Amino acid sequence: MQKRIYLDNNATTMVDARVKELMLPFICEHYGNPNSLHKFGTEVHPTLHEAFNKLYDGIHANEKDDIIITSGATESNNWVLKSIYFDLIATGKKKHIITTEVEHPAVSATCRFLETQGVKVTYIPINKNGRIEAKDIESAITDETALVSVMWANNETGLIFPIKEISHICIQKGVLFHTDATQAIGKIPVNVQECPVDFLSFSAHKFHGPKGIGGLYIKKGISLTPFFHGGEQMRGRRGGTLNVPGIIGMGEAMKLANDYLDYENSTVTKMRDYLEDALLKIPDVIVVGDRKHRVPNTTLISIRGIEGEAMLWDLNKAGIACSTGSACASEDLEANPVMVAIGADKELAHTAVRISLSRFNTQDEIDYTIEVFKKAVERLRKISSSYEGGL
Amino acid sequence: MQKRIYLDNNATTMVDARVKELMLPFICEHYGNPNSLHKFGTEVHPTLHEAFNKLYDGIHANEKDDIIITSGATESNNWVLKSIYFDLIATGKKKHIITTEVEHPAVSATCRFLETQGVKVTYIPINKNGRIEAKDIESAITDETALVSVMWANNETGLIFPIKEISHICIQKGVLFHTDATQAIGKIPVNVQECPVDFLSFSAHKFHGPKGIGGLYIKKGISLTPFFHGGEQMRGRRGGTLNVPGIIGMGEAMKLANDYLDYENSTVTKMRDYLEDALLKIPDVIVVGDRKHRVPNTTLISIRGIEGEAMLWDLNKAGIACSTGSACASEDLEANPVMVAIGADKELAHTAVRISLSRFNTQDEIDYTIEVFKKAVERLRKISSSYEGGL
Repeated sequence: MQKRIYLDNNATTMVDARVKELMLPFICEHYGNPNSLHKFGTEVHPTLHEAFNKLYDGIHANEKDDIIITSGATESNNWVLKSIYFDLIATGKKKHIITTEVEHPAVSATCRFLETQGVKVTYIPINKNGRIEAKDIESAITDETALVSVMWANNETGLIFPIKEISHICIQKGVLFHTDATQAIGKIPVNVQECPVDFLSFSAHKFHGPKGIGGLYIKKGISLTPFFHGGEQMRGRRGGTLNVPGIIGMGEAMKLANDYLDYENSTVTKMRDYLEDALLKIPDVIVVGDRKHRVPNTTLISIRGIEGEAMLWDLNKAGIACSTGSACASEDLEANPVMVAIGADKELAHTAVRISLSRFNTQDEIDYTIEVFKKAVERLRKISSSYEGGL
Repeated sequence: MQKRIYLDNNATTMVDARVKELMLPFICEHYGNPNSLHKFGTEVHPTLHEAFNKLYDGIHANEKDDIIITSGATESNNWVLKSIYFDLIATGKKKHIITTEVEHPAVSATCRFLETQGVKVTYIPINKNGRIEAKDIESAITDETALVSVMWANNETGLIFPIKEISHICIQKGVLFHTDATQAIGKIPVNVQECPVDFLSFSAHKFHGPKGIGGLYIKKGISLTPFFHGGEQMRGRRGGTLNVPGIIGMGEAMKLANDYLDYENSTVTKMRDYLEDALLKIPDVIVVGDRKHRVPNTTLISIRGIEGEAMLWDLNKAGIACSTGSACASEDLEANPVMVAIGADKELAHTAVRISLSRFNTQDEIDYTIEVFKKAVERLRKISSSYEGGL
């Protein structure tokens, strides 16, 4: 039987079997609409309530804060940016949004859209180590700034950005702060008490929860025009019948993500570092970003002379799943934007391969991956037109 | 064991067991992101492709039309209205949207929001039979009209609106036409060739599919600014990782909905009519809307002297689930808006009970419901302060 080794956990993850088990009774048996007054509606309340508690506990939210269920971080990110546009920019109070050059398309494409509506957007670049510097955010803030939006951890490199520092800068300057924590939850502690952000986006399917469900944390007292106008669900903040199995699954996935944080930061980190050390012994290979600033599971590696897609092909044939970068754009054969941003030459930017582990990977899988990777490099460099020693 | 009789299928429905079965392998086994290039991503393509075919077949879409997956009709409705705002109204090309007084909050609340942005909205009232008349839409259209949005069937009464006629009027007048078909799919034929609408919204959980997934049909060649800016999913029309199990479930639910259309329009209709006939024998009871213009499953019934909520309570105690109207607002004890719109006095508007059947109901359940209903009327009228003969 062919091996199935999944090392693309920044694209999506396997649903934990315990998450699935908890969801199942709410599909064909307890299928009521929780906003209904009858038993079919009210009988789902206790489990739904537990799920919300797990979400609040998971990010250390205050009970007076709101965690609003969305269909995922893409919705949450669009919501914050577009509603800040309606609330603060279209009303003439502010004009400006600050974000980074390396956000997920759900933020960057939304910002580009808002630019067509007259919003001024500043895109802060990463430094040569792949990180965003808080001082660059600070100096970009003006009296016209409505919002700062910076991701907690980068999806390509796994590099962690200084969210705590930026949140304090934003408080001091009186500017709202949003973070897309999609790649942080389940990998590093995400604590909205310690990092007092105003808005925080997440997607369950990135931490072994179901697809099609996510959330937006909104700090208590912060108003934000709804993105989904409609029914009175979620205290009027987001219309639409509640996705009960999805919420229950996400709650459990969040709980498990936190239960496994130590494992992630010990065993998964060790496996990732072991893999990385082995691959770095191959000549002309570089890894982006200092390990101490990275989430435990991610390696973005460049192998000079080998197109990322060619590498993926060889790995895939051997049953190993990796990516050249964000799955949201992986059907295009474009240069990796983070590689470009850190100043890699164009050739190198086309060689990036992202390896992202999870708690379900094993040391055996990592050993096999190293073996396959080395053989693939050898084979592909022999036929490479750009690598010396190749054709 | 307590009876469990579910007669609130306009709020949400039980997932068909066949739908669930088809979804299950895509939760913990075939969990890849379909936008990934590797096997975990590509192995879901055939089943996903089949699901899309079922959706296209279900509403008779042309292969060049788009059916874009959303999180449900609330998203689809918000999308159309807000993107028409950005595309045609904020740009100064048009100023006006026409809708009805009895749309779902996902349309009406969005329209009220757009009014705060300077959009002129006309709300067409229903006639005394509870229906929208196409001629009223026609005469409201001006050169400034960007969009007409009329639901296919009303969620409260089940009354079917003249979508075919309105779509031809809109084509003739050169105005875009959107219909919220959430309450039509699975109940009556929905055919976008015969009723050439530009946009059509739907939610899987209203036709025995999963919660948290729906769609927006967009006629070929019609442009519409994305609502979820983000990744390149759905040909760039809607960002966000595809909810694979949800799409697969929705596809099968759509197929089954169409397979059961005849059953719905024979057996379910007969059970509904039988129930209605029995309840109409109770004195001072009225049902809203002519049966020949209603979807097969819905009865909106008013019992003079009895608050709808009191009636629900008695039914619920006996294991029967109904509603006083849309579940999206059912936590409020407000007068039923459709009852108000057809000119019912305030007292009568507070007495509405919505009974909505599905293909899973049985004649035994209906017989039991009639029995319970009659007893409840008797008991509640005795203690009613507003009904003569009561306290």
